[in-house]
Amino acid sequence: MDFQDIIIKKRNKQKLTAEEIAFFIDGVTKGTLPDYQISALLMAIYLNGMDTEETAAMTTEMAHSGELFDLSAIKGYKVDKHSTGGVADTTTLILAPLVASVGVPVVKMSGRGLGFSGGTIDKLESIPHFCTDISEKTALAYAQKSGIVLMGQTENLTPADKKLYALRDVTGTVESLPLIAASIMSKKIAAGADGIVLDVKCGNGAFMKTPEDAEALASVMVEMGHHVGRKVVAVISSMAQPLGLCIGNSLEVQEAIEVLKGNVGGDLLAVSLTLGAYMLLLAKRVHTVEEGKALLLTQIQNKKGLEKFRELLLQQGGNPDILTNYHLLPLSPCTYSIKAEQAGYLTGTDTARIGRASQETGAGRAYKEQPLDFGAGIIMKKRLGDKIEIGEELAVVYSQTAEKSKAAGDILKTAFTISKAPAPLPPLILKVIQ
Amino acid sequence: MDFQDIIIKKRNKQKLTAEEIAFFIDGVTKGTLPDYQISALLMAIYLNGMDTEETAAMTTEMAHSGELFDLSAIKGYKVDKHSTGGVADTTTLILAPLVASVGVPVVKMSGRGLGFSGGTIDKLESIPHFCTDISEKTALAYAQKSGIVLMGQTENLTPADKKLYALRDVTGTVESLPLIAASIMSKKIAAGADGIVLDVKCGNGAFMKTPEDAEALASVMVEMGHHVGRKVVAVISSMAQPLGLCIGNSLEVQEAIEVLKGNVGGDLLAVSLTLGAYMLLLAKRVHTVEEGKALLLTQIQNKKGLEKFRELLLQQGGNPDILTNYHLLPLSPCTYSIKAEQAGYLTGTDTARIGRASQETGAGRAYKEQPLDFGAGIIMKKRLGDKIEIGEELAVVYSQTAEKSKAAGDILKTAFTISKAPAPLPPLILKVIQ
Repeated sequence: MDFQDIIIKKRNKQKLTAEEIAFFIDGVTKGTLPDYQISALLMAIYLNGMDTEETAAMTTEMAHSGELFDLSAIKGYKVDKHSTGGVADTTTLILAPLVASVGVPVVKMSGRGLGFSGGTIDKLESIPHFCTDISEKTALAYAQKSGIVLMGQTENLTPADKKLYALRDVTGTVESLPLIAASIMSKKIAAGADGIVLDVKCGNGAFMKTPEDAEALASVMVEMGHHVGRKVVAVISSMAQPLGLCIGNSLEVQEAIEVLKGNVGGDLLAVSLTLGAYMLLLAKRVHTVEEGKALLLTQIQNKKGLEKFRELLLQQGGNPDILTNYHLLPLSPCTYSIKAEQAGYLTGTDTARIGRASQETGAGRAYKEQPLDFGAGIIMKKRLGDKIEIGEELAVVYSQTAEKSKAAGDILKTAFTISKAPAPLPPLILKVIQ
Repeated sequence: MDFQDIIIKKRNKQKLTAEEIAFFIDGVTKGTLPDYQISALLMAIYLNGMDTEETAAMTTEMAHSGELFDLSAIKGYKVDKHSTGGVADTTTLILAPLVASVGVPVVKMSGRGLGFSGGTIDKLESIPHFCTDISEKTALAYAQKSGIVLMGQTENLTPADKKLYALRDVTGTVESLPLIAASIMSKKIAAGADGIVLDVKCGNGAFMKTPEDAEALASVMVEMGHHVGRKVVAVISSMAQPLGLCIGNSLEVQEAIEVLKGNVGGDLLAVSLTLGAYMLLLAKRVHTVEEGKALLLTQIQNKKGLEKFRELLLQQGGNPDILTNYHLLPLSPCTYSIKAEQAGYLTGTDTARIGRASQETGAGRAYKEQPLDFGAGIIMKKRLGDKIEIGEELAVVYSQTAEKSKAAGDILKTAFTISKAPAPLPPLILKVIQ
């Protein structure tokens, strides 16, 4: 097979066969195809698309490009969860202990973040001594004992995806629906769970800006899952504003603990309960989503979720005293307060810009190897729809230097729209696809 | 400037600025941009196009990426000619001596061929001891004395084009109108002639299959020339069948000599005279195309063109005895004859397939480093419109082995369409754009 013929076929808007896609992914995995040919094909796929069959073939090939994580030794129905990425999106730290606390095992591999803020692994590493770099064998042992493992990706998970993502990241081919779907789903399939709940973010702070785009991505991913015999539910949730109030690594850990303690509610809790309830539904632990939400809420009230989080901390070396003493978590010293310059109602937030401001504080990475400032970030003080007085605080920035906080604040203060009249609030959960 | 932003801009169908194109070509020339980013941009350009301004900027930057050939020391108006490439397209070997013989200097850099058959340089090298690898200094000295130089490209001519062409060749991005136009015109501009005649081939044996595509390419190239102050004429000529009867390196040299001797007429002569006449017109040596054609025809009749060819051979080390003794030119021994299996009229030739058959004989290259068999090729016996009897010879294949000749013949024999009734003949010259 000549790889250039495959490039030309896709360039000419033709459908690639399963054999051609297998040849492509095999060559990427083995390193037998040159990067310049791969990137030409990626651009052709970006511009001419791939249909469901092509995307399914790519997903399957990528999932099998490395070792598959075999979870069969763990009793019960294993559930996984993935978010396409948003700002102040800390649901994993909340729902994983809640779901595990009712006996449904959660073994979740997460990634590091690039852009707005850290990924789940970065957030966990902001907890002193928490270890995410654990072997499959250790993960299985942990899961059998506690029913919860939050870990980094194993070395040889979907090597083809790692290689392709690195190339996409520098060739303007990241935001492609079939490539995003194949990347996410190949990792989830390789990670071995029986059921997968996807949180597809939609809005000005997400990859997918419109409900239509989000639904298209969600549909393809659900179909990919069915194609390989996994149950998949995709929840499309709003990213019209940051999901929680805290943005940044240790700040988000604090907020997650506050939710588990029952001290914080709002959208972050609501989305966590919804996603968690679908995980319970997939595992047949409950019969309806409402029953699932109620059960998880009970686990907050009776502190069983918090207990499971403590068990996770002890299991993976994190200091459990952080649950009662937040001073044990890093917090960057230089603050900068953003105050309202006019009165009215908060009718819009430029969430991507808030994410950019968070990155500027040091909470997110501009490039892959950039070290994070775990204590940096932003605490939001207002939600969409809130009434605002002149001079009221809208947000506070935390970073290591006054200059950085000022720079982040300068970006942040342009992200708020305050209007005389209130505007209707966008729905939090737009749609569920399964 | 971030190169990925440039890729993303073109990916999003936006127009690149002159500065962005300069950054791109500078990075290609200096080797500071990675191949995988360049090929992603090339695919984006292939699929989303470039407008005239972008193409002009790219042409100018590529022309200046290396040394410019300064022809100012040569007296008179210097003319150059370029063909977009066809089968049995030997016009340079005919028109260059004819035009030079009436006092208009022709200094032409040519390339090697890839695909159907050799390029002008390959054809010349099939003449024993003919040297095409000459320095600029020597070329200028030759031109001042004889008024004719046919040479390979100098080392440092348009290095950006060399690099980009090598990448396009393996990433499915060759057949892009703006990229073809920029590649051709940058080389022609760097080669220094005052006037340039382009032969844009159109038909089933050419890059451009339809008159519309050929006209679009011709128009862009003419505009590129005007943009940098060079006079450019583009002649769109038919590639509905091989231009001459001989395909292959030494075979085409023989046919060119036969034309210069006045023994062979037909389409090859007609196109050579047309292109040559426009060269004379650009140089103001004649007032009309018709006057130009008549003058060049005289140079055939009085053998002045043949004399100039002899001068060229002597100048560049070729054996002038080939003019009278064709046995001094290589001819591959194993022949294979294609005969008509039905009677009627020749109403169609698949010219690209004839080219493929020629390549199979060893006359053309499948890959860049492949050595050519200078004596291999095909002699066509019939032209479109000819009446054909059953068993009549349509073509003869020449190669080094019976197997190769048979293999080429098997491709070749499927390239003829013989019909009961004659079909109208396509025009030879479709249009002239200036």
